[in-house]
Amino acid sequence: MVKILDTTLRDGEQTPGVSLNPHEKLEIAIKLDDLGVDIIEAGSAITSKGEREGIKAITSQGLKAEICSFTRAMTVDIDYALECNVDGVHLVVPVSDIHIKHKLRKTREETLKCALDAVEYAKDHGLIVELSGEDATRSDIDFLIELFKKGVEVGADRVCVCDTVGVLTPERSYDLFKRICGEISVPVSVHCHNDFGMATANTLSAIRGGAQECHLTINGIGERAGNASLEEVVMALHILYNIKTNIKTEKLYEVSRVVSRLMKIPVPPNKAIVGDNAFAHEAGIHVDGLIKNNQTYEPIPPEMVGNRRRIILGKHSGKAALKYKLDLMGVSLSKEEFEKVYERIKNLGDLGKYISDVDLKTIINEVRGESPERKIQLDELTVVSGNKITPVASIRLKFSGDRKEEQLIETSFGVGPVDAAINAIRKALSSVADITLEEYHVRSIGSGTDAFVEVTVKLRRGHEVVEVKSQQEDIIRASVDAVMEGINLLI
Amino acid sequence: MVKILDTTLRDGEQTPGVSLNPHEKLEIAIKLDDLGVDIIEAGSAITSKGEREGIKAITSQGLKAEICSFTRAMTVDIDYALECNVDGVHLVVPVSDIHIKHKLRKTREETLKCALDAVEYAKDHGLIVELSGEDATRSDIDFLIELFKKGVEVGADRVCVCDTVGVLTPERSYDLFKRICGEISVPVSVHCHNDFGMATANTLSAIRGGAQECHLTINGIGERAGNASLEEVVMALHILYNIKTNIKTEKLYEVSRVVSRLMKIPVPPNKAIVGDNAFAHEAGIHVDGLIKNNQTYEPIPPEMVGNRRRIILGKHSGKAALKYKLDLMGVSLSKEEFEKVYERIKNLGDLGKYISDVDLKTIINEVRGESPERKIQLDELTVVSGNKITPVASIRLKFSGDRKEEQLIETSFGVGPVDAAINAIRKALSSVADITLEEYHVRSIGSGTDAFVEVTVKLRRGHEVVEVKSQQEDIIRASVDAVMEGINLLI
Repeated sequence: MVKILDTTLRDGEQTPGVSLNPHEKLEIAIKLDDLGVDIIEAGSAITSKGEREGIKAITSQGLKAEICSFTRAMTVDIDYALECNVDGVHLVVPVSDIHIKHKLRKTREETLKCALDAVEYAKDHGLIVELSGEDATRSDIDFLIELFKKGVEVGADRVCVCDTVGVLTPERSYDLFKRICGEISVPVSVHCHNDFGMATANTLSAIRGGAQECHLTINGIGERAGNASLEEVVMALHILYNIKTNIKTEKLYEVSRVVSRLMKIPVPPNKAIVGDNAFAHEAGIHVDGLIKNNQTYEPIPPEMVGNRRRIILGKHSGKAALKYKLDLMGVSLSKEEFEKVYERIKNLGDLGKYISDVDLKTIINEVRGESPERKIQLDELTVVSGNKITPVASIRLKFSGDRKEEQLIETSFGVGPVDAAINAIRKALSSVADITLEEYHVRSIGSGTDAFVEVTVKLRRGHEVVEVKSQQEDIIRASVDAVMEGINLLI
Repeated sequence: MVKILDTTLRDGEQTPGVSLNPHEKLEIAIKLDDLGVDIIEAGSAITSKGEREGIKAITSQGLKAEICSFTRAMTVDIDYALECNVDGVHLVVPVSDIHIKHKLRKTREETLKCALDAVEYAKDHGLIVELSGEDATRSDIDFLIELFKKGVEVGADRVCVCDTVGVLTPERSYDLFKRICGEISVPVSVHCHNDFGMATANTLSAIRGGAQECHLTINGIGERAGNASLEEVVMALHILYNIKTNIKTEKLYEVSRVVSRLMKIPVPPNKAIVGDNAFAHEAGIHVDGLIKNNQTYEPIPPEMVGNRRRIILGKHSGKAALKYKLDLMGVSLSKEEFEKVYERIKNLGDLGKYISDVDLKTIINEVRGESPERKIQLDELTVVSGNKITPVASIRLKFSGDRKEEQLIETSFGVGPVDAAINAIRKALSSVADITLEEYHVRSIGSGTDAFVEVTVKLRRGHEVVEVKSQQEDIIRASVDAVMEGINLLI
């Protein structure tokens, strides 16, 4: 069993440009506790008044996890931590000569004395103390061990080796922890950074070497290239090393998204374990293999981490993938139709186009010579917006088929022009079907105001959910088109 | 010296939703050649007509790198590769029982025969052959070595071990390559996936075990969680292992951005080596240490990889960081003013706000009791847009100071409402200053149409460049505000 100290709220929040208010800090802490982390590093109490409010909110919540604050080896830092009613402190002391000489402008002896005084002070005040060596992986290991040993003598409960600038390698990590764990009588912890992309591997090697606790962040966020990812380390421990933790792995995806939303840091699609592409498949041979047996191209089932499998059509898609998709959509085609649809997908893929579910339906309709099944069409849209007026939109929708004579006209305001337009559509459709807009995302492609924007919407009607993308130069039209396409898929 | 096979154009392009046209493939290949990769896997010739056009464009360019195509162990694949005039093939044969039984529905003997026939066929046609074992890390190693040995007997020039679903660990990787390299007489290559976040470490361990070549992608893109990152592996080899490659490391950042732009996959800010945060610093103690000595919090100088150092102010910023920033901006404050500015930054940080350069200037002006130096202000903006009309905008700008009585009124159309509004501002200002909009990006924060969007603009006037962010619910106003702020900074 390895213990997890989650430092999303300290190292993670130190991500440049990220700042959480006390309420957001608490929301994340509750999610982390629910996920099963053993220790939550809630922040650094000395940082600011707001930071202390956040830490206090967390300590007064009665969570299962131990709550600690980062502190330097200074009584002022520890006093602020005490004010927040934390269970313990993560007491960090620079130990490399680069840090001691250039940052602290002290000698090793002075640094050691400072550290031990701080540990004693914290212990005298009833705190759990984890004594960390900052930049330990560039320090003199004999000095590091001396600090740890003396720290334990004056009461440190745990010690931690920080690879502050991420220069460890797996084999050095193993050797280092093997030696330290052999000499230190309390649990040893590991704190890795990802500057060379090896934080996860270095953390795991430290555990192989004897570390009993590791410092991790959700989505691997943190300063510079970030910290070791909680989801990667935990899944590797469970699956590749058969070592347990208290983490409820099926909650990983959800917690990843809460942190992303509150910290305003998107999760890269190809992020291991929790990325939206982590279990997505496009290439022909991959999907072909996957359909025959999931294990061929999946190391673990996506449900194990709360993620899901996605099949994507494009220029690499084989016929098996298309057949699989069509089966899922309940569409059956003649052999000739199938070949034509397949050809069209390949051609679109060659043009650099991503084929959405909507594109596929359109292609099928065209190949069959059927007119597109657009039950509701946008006939007219007008939006007026500015800095001195409330954004307002008017729309006119038309029906096809039996209801050809009918039309729906609505107007609405909104916080911006897109919101006004979508609100007008929502109002118009409330009489037709109960459709909710669950997600709306926009990003620019290219780099001018005349470049394309890509809008992604997720709409729900009962249990049915569709995701539609639309790329256009005009953000309002892209948004409206995506919503209209989604609505037509749902009704 | 380790050789690099770059598979950005094959594994990387298999990223779900990504598709390059032949022209884009060529643009990336030229950049990779210039970067110094030894072998370019240009694609998979059998995939489609467009893919072959892309590969042909690359082979006819006369690049220094060896150009290869991915093929299965089938003559039809090899024929298509030959049609594209490649130097060699990356000939991939499934070797695990999961793949052989479930995907190929063959026996080991049949698979072996297929593979050897294909190698012979490719060699007979003058191709360099790299024989790859797909899913080799879940295969019977004795069978894998048998395949490799017999493959070499019939002419394979190199062999490659693929960790297809990313289940290697560094120590298993080392042991596996140690054994294989001890038994195989040709160079052994390694191809790792990042499903548990260890692709970089596993690649490096394979090289320690004797591998002489590695398969990498720019930005670590690829199917699912992606492949081993070229920038991470190369920098770890150069810096942590003192092993050379032919890569010109100072070009890494630029190549990363070209691939990101053409594949439309953003580079995560905390991506090691090439992320925009990889050398960014916010927390107080970090910036403090950094100012005294860069080495304290930087494993390598950012210039080494074409990246740059960024100092960001926020709630974690210490006084040293603020002083450093003010010095860079050429602003000197009295002690009292400095304390007030510092206090304001802390308060804003606590509210969860990111402090941009523009925010800092505003704070300084306010603390000094100076009226904000807004030389040009937006007085009125109106935009009309819709599906049956050309988007049109009108603006009225006002001047401050001497030119208080002046105003500028302009109208313009655009491809969308934002473009129309910005065009109107551009037109109005053409008489005042020669300012160009170099970059415009937008992304949503939160997930409804009433959530915030963040607009980032980069404006240039001569050699001076400013980057301004604006977050609002209304995309048009966010865009206009960002541009107006940038203009005021430049004039």
